[in-house]
Amino acid sequence: MAAENGLGKVVDGLLASYERDRRGHYIGKKYLPSREEIFEIIELLFQVFYPGYYGRQDLTEGNLRYHVVTLVSTLREKLATQIEKCLCWASESQGNEAGACAEYGRHIACRLLSRLPEIRDTLLLDVQAAYDGDPAAGSLDEVILSYPGLLAITVHRVAHELYVLGVPLMPRIMSEWAHSQSGADIHPGATVGKSFFIDHATGVVIGETSHIGGNVKVYQGVTLGAISHPKDERGRVIRDQKRHPTVEDSVTLYANATVLGGQTVVGQGSVVGGSVFLTRGIPKRSRVAVKPPETRVIAAGSQPGDDEYPADFEI
Amino acid sequence: MAAENGLGKVVDGLLASYERDRRGHYIGKKYLPSREEIFEIIELLFQVFYPGYYGRQDLTEGNLRYHVVTLVSTLREKLATQIEKCLCWASESQGNEAGACAEYGRHIACRLLSRLPEIRDTLLLDVQAAYDGDPAAGSLDEVILSYPGLLAITVHRVAHELYVLGVPLMPRIMSEWAHSQSGADIHPGATVGKSFFIDHATGVVIGETSHIGGNVKVYQGVTLGAISHPKDERGRVIRDQKRHPTVEDSVTLYANATVLGGQTVVGQGSVVGGSVFLTRGIPKRSRVAVKPPETRVIAAGSQPGDDEYPADFEI
Amino acid sequence: MAAENGLGKVVDGLLASYERDRRGHYIGKKYLPSREEIFEIIELLFQVFYPGYYGRQDLTEGNLRYHVVTLVSTLREKLATQIEKCLCWASESQGNEAGACAEYGRHIACRLLSRLPEIRDTLLLDVQAAYDGDPAAGSLDEVILSYPGLLAITVHRVAHELYVLGVPLMPRIMSEWAHSQSGADIHPGATVGKSFFIDHATGVVIGETSHIGGNVKVYQGVTLGAISHPKDERGRVIRDQKRHPTVEDSVTLYANATVLGGQTVVGQGSVVGGSVFLTRGIPKRSRVAVKPPETRVIAAGSQPGDDEYPADFEI
Repeated sequence: MAAENGLGKVVDGLLASYERDRRGHYIGKKYLPSREEIFEIIELLFQVFYPGYYGRQDLTEGNLRYHVVTLVSTLREKLATQIEKCLCWASESQGNEAGACAEYGRHIACRLLSRLPEIRDTLLLDVQAAYDGDPAAGSLDEVILSYPGLLAITVHRVAHELYVLGVPLMPRIMSEWAHSQSGADIHPGATVGKSFFIDHATGVVIGETSHIGGNVKVYQGVTLGAISHPKDERGRVIRDQKRHPTVEDSVTLYANATVLGGQTVVGQGSVVGGSVFLTRGIPKRSRVAVKPPETRVIAAGSQPGDDEYPADFEI
Repeated sequence: MAAENGLGKVVDGLLASYERDRRGHYIGKKYLPSREEIFEIIELLFQVFYPGYYGRQDLTEGNLRYHVVTLVSTLREKLATQIEKCLCWASESQGNEAGACAEYGRHIACRLLSRLPEIRDTLLLDVQAAYDGDPAAGSLDEVILSYPGLLAITVHRVAHELYVLGVPLMPRIMSEWAHSQSGADIHPGATVGKSFFIDHATGVVIGETSHIGGNVKVYQGVTLGAISHPKDERGRVIRDQKRHPTVEDSVTLYANATVLGGQTVVGQGSVVGGSVFLTRGIPKRSRVAVKPPETRVIAAGSQPGDDEYPADFEI
Repeated sequence: MAAENGLGKVVDGLLASYERDRRGHYIGKKYLPSREEIFEIIELLFQVFYPGYYGRQDLTEGNLRYHVVTLVSTLREKLATQIEKCLCWASESQGNEAGACAEYGRHIACRLLSRLPEIRDTLLLDVQAAYDGDPAAGSLDEVILSYPGLLAITVHRVAHELYVLGVPLMPRIMSEWAHSQSGADIHPGATVGKSFFIDHATGVVIGETSHIGGNVKVYQGVTLGAISHPKDERGRVIRDQKRHPTVEDSVTLYANATVLGGQTVVGQGSVVGGSVFLTRGIPKRSRVAVKPPETRVIAAGSQPGDDEYPADFEI
């Protein structure tokens, strides 16, 4: 039958495509983390950090320890398995024998787990910073249950820990999950100080080598980016150097502000106005604003109802 | 065993963290809404507003009433339960005895339900506005099935109703769900007139005390925000005052336009161009555009292939 | 009982709303695609394009063909069913007899399937372009597992194919799914050349009639939009004309650059700086930057801790 022939041809075409090019498939190799499992790990972490808000809702002094033991031991198994896969993936990718990753995976999982209480204490400061910084916040509970910026920083603080511990793939899968939920794209490599608040979150981009101090407040659309990507003599992008800005303590960056460059330092206590574009540093306690654009009131009495994008707007 | 010791230590550390700080956990308390249940309520509301598009697809004149009865009575139970939890949460948070919330929760659920037909009629005007305002829209059906701006305003019109009825937590959990799906962050407190259209939706932020008239059109990245957060004599942010703009009837705000401040009024029939930044009001039927930035053609014949972010770009 | 009466009244109100207005419900009609089924089709397509990364993880030379046969034949059934519904929907919407869509639906499904190997080869070039263009990318695998821009272009290349094949509704439901996950809103009508890379993705909007060449790189917040919507003599928006820009080969558009208008051509090899706003074309190999805004350092030594949005910012 024609239809069956068609099916066979499609399958053959795909198999040929897999065979022709070693990129884009993972066949006959053994180690790759599972996105779904990593998303479940994130869900469990929220239950650990904010018990009662996420997961079981009937927690009491009586059942709490049992609940936490169950959570943490489930987390340990899942973390150990996924970290092992990430580590073996790295060996396999480099053509090395992959096999000794199980023990080291478990070791790293335990190291991450041992850091959870401290990470949680830091997250409480982020919760408080969100409440203190936003007059629309009705309570700490509202922040925990519904603020996208808190979701993003919660995932980031774990992803950064895994990044520092040298786990490949997994941190970025975590941060991209947070990005898809919150709109904020924080690279796991970025270092972020205490009491960090991102309001609204959509469109925020924080690059891999950014350094952010304590008590920093960031609004929607803020970019901490790179100026350019220096290339080596063969024209390949050079990786592993500081390409993103440093933002010192107690800085506020208003909506859609852009700060670019690895040498750019926003001095302590500065306030950067909405839509400001900086490629050079500013001293401590600066207040920088865009010069107000000369908005032209083209017509204060044009035809009512004529609301298409005007041809006489020279933008 | 070391691993088991490690596990015990992590658990002890977390329990100590919960005990040390009353923030960030909900243990030994009884009332907190469930995010998952609220997300299910939203799903049911879409089935009520747009039957056949969401949920069952085989609806006929014959089975319609039965379907709607089932939907509405399921909604009533879920709404009553979650609203009760939100109300008791508020009492519990203030240290009051929580208990009389069940009856009042059911009362509010019924009040919301009684408003659904009228909300639906308003939503149809939003559907029509999206179709009329976007030449890429092929049909009303396409708008209902795939427009993120319609998703956002659908959730907003319910969340705003609950906000007006004085339900805590739930409206914001709803609006944040819509934000994560659509990219538009509309605070439940904002009042929005009829025939509202948000195109593309990503990055739109509409603050709590915004007032938006009828026939308003908004593109991606538009912010209706606050200028500053006045503080009381103890340095705490003052809540509960008009901090966001008023946008009158038949206004269009193009992509990434920003309007800030509680006293700022965009007059009826005005058109605000892309990237305009306003902190002062404009009269009726104004057309405001950014003065075209002096874009510099640095080189009309630079080296081909040289595509990194140019060091001679002083931006 | 009052409560039951209330319920009946709500149901009656909704039924009256459905009856009063033919918009916004799909009752007594037979053909409408299912969003959930279309989302499953997307999931299966990712398994076909990137086997091992999505879906089964234990693929070997031995089980690969069987796996692919299963995938492709499941895809064929689901595609044929949903495409049939979309085609019959169109007939039904125009008041025509709908019935001969099954065969044509299967035909189109087979045509799409036959294109999958070639689409996959193109996607591998997109994967490579992302790796080559981003120094933060650690590996091709990281790109496949976590880059939102790759997710968006993967869905787009299929949605565009269905758009060209004349399938209504489905392409836009697919692209909106990608938008909700990645933040990039690419209309299925846009034509996109090979080796396309979108970094960070949030806020990118690419309009229906955009033409994008090969080796183009786009950062977060870039808009390829329309200037205005010409209307016919009855004041209705005119559809079906080129409203969005052309971007030639090897162009880079940095974050938040905006290019508007169907006659606007960004010449081959050009670099458009961050936040540039273009409504007129630029010649080949141009480098265009916003003139640096005169950022005013209002105070280099203001009060520490005074971090609200300053009233003396005239933005």
